[in-house]
Amino acid sequence: MITGVRVTYAELHETVRRALEAAGLAPERAGLCARLIADSSRDGVHSHGLNLVPRLIRMIRAGVVDAHALPTRVSAPGAVERWDGHRGVGALNAYHCMATALAIARRHGIGCVALANTNHWMRGGTYGWQAAEAGAIGICWTNTLPNLPPWGAAEPLVGNNPIVVAVPRPNGHLVVDMALSQFSYGALAGYRSRGETLPVPGGFDGRGEMTRDPAAIEASKRPLPIGFWKGSALSIVLDAIAAMLSGGRATHQIAAGPEEETGLSQVFIAIDVASTVDRDAAAIADAIVAHLDRPSADGGIVRYPGQRTLETRRRQLVEGIEVDLSSWQFLRSITVS
Amino acid sequence: MITGVRVTYAELHETVRRALEAAGLAPERAGLCARLIADSSRDGVHSHGLNLVPRLIRMIRAGVVDAHALPTRVSAPGAVERWDGHRGVGALNAYHCMATALAIARRHGIGCVALANTNHWMRGGTYGWQAAEAGAIGICWTNTLPNLPPWGAAEPLVGNNPIVVAVPRPNGHLVVDMALSQFSYGALAGYRSRGETLPVPGGFDGRGEMTRDPAAIEASKRPLPIGFWKGSALSIVLDAIAAMLSGGRATHQIAAGPEEETGLSQVFIAIDVASTVDRDAAAIADAIVAHLDRPSADGGIVRYPGQRTLETRRRQLVEGIEVDLSSWQFLRSITVS
Repeated sequence: MITGVRVTYAELHETVRRALEAAGLAPERAGLCARLIADSSRDGVHSHGLNLVPRLIRMIRAGVVDAHALPTRVSAPGAVERWDGHRGVGALNAYHCMATALAIARRHGIGCVALANTNHWMRGGTYGWQAAEAGAIGICWTNTLPNLPPWGAAEPLVGNNPIVVAVPRPNGHLVVDMALSQFSYGALAGYRSRGETLPVPGGFDGRGEMTRDPAAIEASKRPLPIGFWKGSALSIVLDAIAAMLSGGRATHQIAAGPEEETGLSQVFIAIDVASTVDRDAAAIADAIVAHLDRPSADGGIVRYPGQRTLETRRRQLVEGIEVDLSSWQFLRSITVS
Repeated sequence: MITGVRVTYAELHETVRRALEAAGLAPERAGLCARLIADSSRDGVHSHGLNLVPRLIRMIRAGVVDAHALPTRVSAPGAVERWDGHRGVGALNAYHCMATALAIARRHGIGCVALANTNHWMRGGTYGWQAAEAGAIGICWTNTLPNLPPWGAAEPLVGNNPIVVAVPRPNGHLVVDMALSQFSYGALAGYRSRGETLPVPGGFDGRGEMTRDPAAIEASKRPLPIGFWKGSALSIVLDAIAAMLSGGRATHQIAAGPEEETGLSQVFIAIDVASTVDRDAAAIADAIVAHLDRPSADGGIVRYPGQRTLETRRRQLVEGIEVDLSSWQFLRSITVS
């Protein structure tokens, strides 16, 4: 990332909004999508915020993503609904489906939406924060193109299938947003460009040895699943559930080029804490967080999941949001012209 | 494990059943619990089958586990129910709660049961296979005593909170059953007693360096979460959800000795595949498995989660079920006297 530029939240939102409107999104949808994207950059998730917008616009121009498509309900036999994303904008489809799961959860205590035929949801944590802000537990995941060798294999046969688990807490939500590979290709490139080795083994080198060398893993295309055989197994079942419940594609049916990746399957589960449990829920979450609040082994602090996000959010809202220069210039070139 | 003894399924079931009845379980409950335990040993999960029975019986005798307690429904506002396990037999409480989640799922498409005040559920996979056999997706997890340092900490502040995800497939269910530590203490002891190093880093040694030496990790009490910071974060949110939904204890409130570990919180989610999706579900799962069916990098085969369990099950039903001699003799001493 070429850094050094900071912008206000309003500037970022407005620039992304105009770029999306120029790419064909209806005004209201461009505004919402720009908010989700600006929120991601504000929270420090640059790789899945602004930095993904040029690719999204290229995919709209190439006809892979349909800027006009709206998701539709296919069936709804109770608290589980099946939706079709019609290859529309992934973030908007996902946001709509988590909102639907939340609405079902308010009626039934729990709601599940399975979404077929959608596109990259950008930052998965978006939909976890969305659920937590609504006072609900949110669990969601997506499948992806094949980018990860399952345990034992040398070829990328499964996806890194990011999963999000969010717990509402008035004093700071607990949110996990993680891909099932230990490091994304974006993260590997970052370590390489900074001349750093990985903090933990991240994949295999060309000789089949586990390594902390990011370039060796980029070359072998053998990143590691989290937990080795465990993350590999988890990737397979999450893909199966997403495809089976949505009736959509499994990872092995998704094209392997990043800008051809379309027709994804996703699952959104919401559990309404307010209606299903008593008021103790917030106190329980607070006590869990309080118990973790102590110095770490290396002299820092032990953090709860979501804590660093809030710290970054607060800092960037004051200092300005750091933006990648090339992504920013790309958007400015669209919106200023 | 001192091996060398093989018994038939019927012998194993009957011996466990009689031991549990002698420990105070009502006849029908002893029979069901013995089936769950014998199934675990049959499937090769010795550590969480027969080998846990002596400890269960000691905990009943010590009054930590109440052999007579039955779980009761506390509240049921829709498709989410809260149950109290009354510190009864963990495996029976868990089996009952997954059965309840399955019944809710048949009505609503999805069902969730949160269980407070229960005990060790033995093999978590039991409840995944239970859901899959009923034609449903099953997702469940438990919290545990504090046995795992969260990322950054040197003390065991969080649990290894096993999670199970099961997908029904007529040609062989897909079942993941995994603790969130990379290796359990039982697994570490096994590697150490065989004089083996771990296949991947499993924890920190006394100097804070990552190591494959099982004895060094047993000494430091610093096993690794799966995916390092990722599994650590997942452990925290799963604990929070289980405690918040059930109204029960979080890990930091659970006594740290294995035979004092009680008052656990668990979550059981079932999604009814038959009523929520069309018949394509089985074909989708079959295609995912077929795509993985190829030679592995080391000349073996790539397996889907659950495949090895079925292989072991078939083999042990023919050859007899391997039993740990000391556990077997302990049970025989109870049941023969």
